[in-house]
Amino acid sequence: MVRVVILGQGYVASIFASGLEKIKAKKIEPYGVPLTDELPIKIKEIEIVGSYDVDKAKVGKDIYEVVKAYDPEAPESLKGITIRKGVHLGSLRNLPLEATGLDDGMDLKEAVEHLVNEWKELKAEVFINVCTTEAFQPFGSRKELEKAIKEDNRKRLTATQVYVYAAAKYAKEVGGAAFVNAIPTLIANDPAFVELAEESNLVVFGDDGATGATPLTADILSHLAQRNRYVLDIAQFNIGGNQDFLALTDKERNKSKEFTKSSIVKDLLGYDAPHYIKPTGFLEPLGDKKFIAMHIEYISFNNARDELVITGRINDSPALAGLLVDLVRLGKMAVEKKAFGTVYDVNAFYMKNPGPKERPNIPRIIAHEKMRMWAGLESRWL
Amino acid sequence: MVRVVILGQGYVASIFASGLEKIKAKKIEPYGVPLTDELPIKIKEIEIVGSYDVDKAKVGKDIYEVVKAYDPEAPESLKGITIRKGVHLGSLRNLPLEATGLDDGMDLKEAVEHLVNEWKELKAEVFINVCTTEAFQPFGSRKELEKAIKEDNRKRLTATQVYVYAAAKYAKEVGGAAFVNAIPTLIANDPAFVELAEESNLVVFGDDGATGATPLTADILSHLAQRNRYVLDIAQFNIGGNQDFLALTDKERNKSKEFTKSSIVKDLLGYDAPHYIKPTGFLEPLGDKKFIAMHIEYISFNNARDELVITGRINDSPALAGLLVDLVRLGKMAVEKKAFGTVYDVNAFYMKNPGPKERPNIPRIIAHEKMRMWAGLESRWL
Amino acid sequence: MVRVVILGQGYVASIFASGLEKIKAKKIEPYGVPLTDELPIKIKEIEIVGSYDVDKAKVGKDIYEVVKAYDPEAPESLKGITIRKGVHLGSLRNLPLEATGLDDGMDLKEAVEHLVNEWKELKAEVFINVCTTEAFQPFGSRKELEKAIKEDNRKRLTATQVYVYAAAKYAKEVGGAAFVNAIPTLIANDPAFVELAEESNLVVFGDDGATGATPLTADILSHLAQRNRYVLDIAQFNIGGNQDFLALTDKERNKSKEFTKSSIVKDLLGYDAPHYIKPTGFLEPLGDKKFIAMHIEYISFNNARDELVITGRINDSPALAGLLVDLVRLGKMAVEKKAFGTVYDVNAFYMKNPGPKERPNIPRIIAHEKMRMWAGLESRWL
Amino acid sequence: MVRVVILGQGYVASIFASGLEKIKAKKIEPYGVPLTDELPIKIKEIEIVGSYDVDKAKVGKDIYEVVKAYDPEAPESLKGITIRKGVHLGSLRNLPLEATGLDDGMDLKEAVEHLVNEWKELKAEVFINVCTTEAFQPFGSRKELEKAIKEDNRKRLTATQVYVYAAAKYAKEVGGAAFVNAIPTLIANDPAFVELAEESNLVVFGDDGATGATPLTADILSHLAQRNRYVLDIAQFNIGGNQDFLALTDKERNKSKEFTKSSIVKDLLGYDAPHYIKPTGFLEPLGDKKFIAMHIEYISFNNARDELVITGRINDSPALAGLLVDLVRLGKMAVEKKAFGTVYDVNAFYMKNPGPKERPNIPRIIAHEKMRMWAGLESRWL
Repeated sequence: MVRVVILGQGYVASIFASGLEKIKAKKIEPYGVPLTDELPIKIKEIEIVGSYDVDKAKVGKDIYEVVKAYDPEAPESLKGITIRKGVHLGSLRNLPLEATGLDDGMDLKEAVEHLVNEWKELKAEVFINVCTTEAFQPFGSRKELEKAIKEDNRKRLTATQVYVYAAAKYAKEVGGAAFVNAIPTLIANDPAFVELAEESNLVVFGDDGATGATPLTADILSHLAQRNRYVLDIAQFNIGGNQDFLALTDKERNKSKEFTKSSIVKDLLGYDAPHYIKPTGFLEPLGDKKFIAMHIEYISFNNARDELVITGRINDSPALAGLLVDLVRLGKMAVEKKAFGTVYDVNAFYMKNPGPKERPNIPRIIAHEKMRMWAGLESRWL
Repeated sequence: MVRVVILGQGYVASIFASGLEKIKAKKIEPYGVPLTDELPIKIKEIEIVGSYDVDKAKVGKDIYEVVKAYDPEAPESLKGITIRKGVHLGSLRNLPLEATGLDDGMDLKEAVEHLVNEWKELKAEVFINVCTTEAFQPFGSRKELEKAIKEDNRKRLTATQVYVYAAAKYAKEVGGAAFVNAIPTLIANDPAFVELAEESNLVVFGDDGATGATPLTADILSHLAQRNRYVLDIAQFNIGGNQDFLALTDKERNKSKEFTKSSIVKDLLGYDAPHYIKPTGFLEPLGDKKFIAMHIEYISFNNARDELVITGRINDSPALAGLLVDLVRLGKMAVEKKAFGTVYDVNAFYMKNPGPKERPNIPRIIAHEKMRMWAGLESRWL
Repeated sequence: MVRVVILGQGYVASIFASGLEKIKAKKIEPYGVPLTDELPIKIKEIEIVGSYDVDKAKVGKDIYEVVKAYDPEAPESLKGITIRKGVHLGSLRNLPLEATGLDDGMDLKEAVEHLVNEWKELKAEVFINVCTTEAFQPFGSRKELEKAIKEDNRKRLTATQVYVYAAAKYAKEVGGAAFVNAIPTLIANDPAFVELAEESNLVVFGDDGATGATPLTADILSHLAQRNRYVLDIAQFNIGGNQDFLALTDKERNKSKEFTKSSIVKDLLGYDAPHYIKPTGFLEPLGDKKFIAMHIEYISFNNARDELVITGRINDSPALAGLLVDLVRLGKMAVEKKAFGTVYDVNAFYMKNPGPKERPNIPRIIAHEKMRMWAGLESRWL
Repeated sequence: MVRVVILGQGYVASIFASGLEKIKAKKIEPYGVPLTDELPIKIKEIEIVGSYDVDKAKVGKDIYEVVKAYDPEAPESLKGITIRKGVHLGSLRNLPLEATGLDDGMDLKEAVEHLVNEWKELKAEVFINVCTTEAFQPFGSRKELEKAIKEDNRKRLTATQVYVYAAAKYAKEVGGAAFVNAIPTLIANDPAFVELAEESNLVVFGDDGATGATPLTADILSHLAQRNRYVLDIAQFNIGGNQDFLALTDKERNKSKEFTKSSIVKDLLGYDAPHYIKPTGFLEPLGDKKFIAMHIEYISFNNARDELVITGRINDSPALAGLLVDLVRLGKMAVEKKAFGTVYDVNAFYMKNPGPKERPNIPRIIAHEKMRMWAGLESRWL
């Protein structure tokens, strides 16, 4: 069994919940789950035990009602979990939603205490953080982090940062837990949090679930690098209609995302080819199925100039939700292995911005094999 | 030094010759050469010592004259090699060219003898076969092959098959040589030839140089397989204006190409997703820069359906020519290592249809690392 | 009221029937019907009164049962029409279907007689021919056509040709009827049939409903022509999984399609730019939603070279079915106007190969306006 | 003869100058010039007599030197024209260029006077305005405009607005002139300027030359509208590496461009389909050859959902430069016809934002025919 607590009951979390239940009921195949049932912990052992949100329209509702709004075919087996109030700290700023949070009625230390108590009650094992993309600043130092909590510094902290802090406290008290950070806020890449995790029996996976065009770009760039083709420029657009894209029209949040993705080019090519890679816009009718377009121009042998264009329609939330089905199980395995802190071998495959900070992006196809080996599985092609 | 003999002085061989000389003269960067100067044998050590063709308009000409027709910036350092008469066996059938070959004036055994003698004089070390795509039948058994030569069976044999036979005879006599088969005719995948090579001190690399859309498709399929996305269908078109595309409008030749590429899907996905992958047409003004278009549809988590479309303009000949700069050096290294027969670790990265017959396609990104290790280089990402 | 008889109850006819009934019941909007309810004859006045097919699995069934196989949401209002036996003349050759036809039990003259009698009973006003693409030869002369019927020459005649012959006979007897030829077989482009139609009170619209990539190509070529950009080459691929694509894998049928589409390039550009435009393949999982890919390269001012690539997923049958909702009404209007023979102003917008033979393709955007004027509507932009 | 004065000697003007001279010398074909030599005024009659710029590195140089930097094959026949100092008014703000202008040393009234005097000396007939995209505000009223000039209000006025004001003054004095506004600043769409032009014997064509993806989008939307396909959403990206794209990274300028293009959707479809159409980014290695990507999703018959994707590499400056070869001739013709003010029939084909303000976008294919008729030519397809 893996007891999962969701932080942010939005599109991704809802598709995760719905798909998970359908797979457990054998209504659908586990497509999009990289390791399916190869792991010692099986998919059917995953159980959602709690869910948090800060949207006034969701808090207090049964999770089934919320999931159904995202997936009309949500199974009724989801019924029975009430969505609890989380921490917002302005995370819904500039979005057409009314926020409600523990932080409205108490200071941050109290909120952390409150969460830890609830999680004990829920016997949480793994947290998955799928909040809306935040405008954030990494901490870098443990001291700064502790100080911000202590001083109730709401301008400095984001919801995610408070959740990880609470999860660390919780893990320390109960002997172990895992936190999967699927959004861009730097956690596994912030030494402050990695150090905190190491000392608190917390496993942190992160940052930013590797979905969408970026992992594909990574493998295509690796493909070119291995042939010593010289990349002249890369343009990558993507536009979607879900709340994540809406949030990114907010300039500050967009900036954090941009930061995340850019290092890939240099890590894989070995030089920083000029590139324009960022979420481009919001167009509501596209919904969760974003449109991506990518253009790559490179020099081949004898100075020949080639061009590649990749376009696609990709369902954003399912891509991430499928990875979470692995990540919650790998999180529990990491706790069992006492691999506290963060685990690069897992992050390198599943995350856009694999922590810790000093580790690079590598081709996903190779990262996959290494991750398998970390998980005790045979490599497929090595 | 690597002494190279070219078989088929067409587009690929001419770009190979021109680009090689420019790199040696430091006029251009070695882009498109996967291993650049990482190998113990350096690019500047490669020397073209002989060239064969069967186009009446080319035989007897200086190689520089022919190369210039393909690349107006061909360097004059190419001057001094006269193109010799090879074997055609109908390989120009249905093409707007007049053929001339040794086989016009002698039987096949005599032609083989003739070639072996010339090669001794040239002190050939590595042969690169870049003839026009042939309509062929694999032999399977050594006996059948020997019989066809002996009986001068011109309907059964292709030029490539005769060249490999001659190269084996030559290698046996001089103690070692390598044959790089960059076209679809099965050589490294034909047990008859692999066995012959093993016994004759011949290294064979093949078959069909891994250029164009196929290796990219391979890496993209691996990318999907590693995420357990279920591929519904794959359509891949490509159209070009060079002689290779013209030759493929000839139905029989096209068939051999089609056979080559199809196994990739099953090898990489683990199931035979419905696919349509074949050269599609000839359109002269496109020249050597083909247009490719690929459509892939797959199922992601929670039964979401995604689509990818890849299009591109890719220079056909330089892509292959750049690989040849590695392959001639790896060929000489294999001879030195006495790795006679064929070398899967090399083929798996450089060939569309990596021999021997029973070995599968694997993701190119991984094949690259294994090939590096075979060549004594450090892996980049493993 | 417009009393419609369907010839060929396949995908297009079934989507036509289903969509029509849904629009009449106000369940859906009339999207894809160019003239919606601008015409004096309204959509709700269209009534399907008969349907013919030669697939043993369909003949004798209620049309509702057949339509439901193509559109699970087919409305029950379709019930009550039994699919009758038509003429096959080998039209299902090489398809995985068992054929049954009037021509199995009688000679062609008798079959024609039989059809005419049934149509009188049905009080047919407009026929829509949406048979499977045929391998055919145009007649050119009336005499040849009459002779073929008289001599029961089954090798010379296709099902469509016999249907038009029968429709002419019927129109002559009842005073007027219209025949919409939505497939590539030349009818409105065959002087033999146009002459027959003129003399028989028959209106013929044709040939080959203008759906898919071709009309879009036409407008894009017009766009380039108007800016005097010099088109170097055009490649257009399309691949689908419906029976029409399966039929086109049959070489002879494909040839007839190819003939149809090629003239567009010269008609619109004024010169015959090198092009490769033909249905490319069959890939079953694509179903009725084909994948198209098009590449156009041209020279702009100061010898600059530009490239356009168009790709798409397009539902094949609905695109044609929507046009038929106009064409049956325009057919009746033409009969009322006594515009017997064929009507270029209608064909030029709705058909890939607008008859009569000597008339060219023109930009669809302009053809649309002219067609509106023919129909007595105000032009939108002229 | 047409005596042309260039305002803004950047990429477009330089390609215009270079291509024009090459056509006049019969070195290249007049591709990209819509009306070639169909007009009564021939291409060879066009003469560039003056050129203005505000880039310190250009002012005072021979036009040939500047053109050569954009087109290495610039013909020497360009020699002999010295680039004069224009008006900048902050138009190079945020660009990596040093500005110099008449406005640095005199007030605006004096600058206008200065220009008018120079133009008299040059005997200018047609002005083409190809300045860098400006951040501007339309005037709306004549009075406001006159006041801004009088009060030397440099914050309110842009270089273009001052140039048109000067051109009007000049035209009034000499009896007629034409001003082609090829950039987004509203001139032909600003009643203040149209009124001024009418009263001053000035012809104004504008606004914003119809190049790039927008006119193609227009024709594709018309194509869909004529088939009553319901457009769900449109996303259009474009990214380039020339100075125009660099300027658009400046937020305010980008806003003006966005305004220009949006009305097309509603004008052509009849409803305002959700869309995201704007220049997306700057990526230097792309140079003048921008990359465009467009996605359109629509509903067809029976609620089928189709998708189109258009991508391309398009040379930005030649596309506009080719149109200018027509526009300067049409400008002179309009002066001869005394068609003072603005000419919608010309604007509707050549401009993204065809003035006057109250007139809509129409399909370009139709606009072309109407423009031909205005110019006294036969329509090609009507």
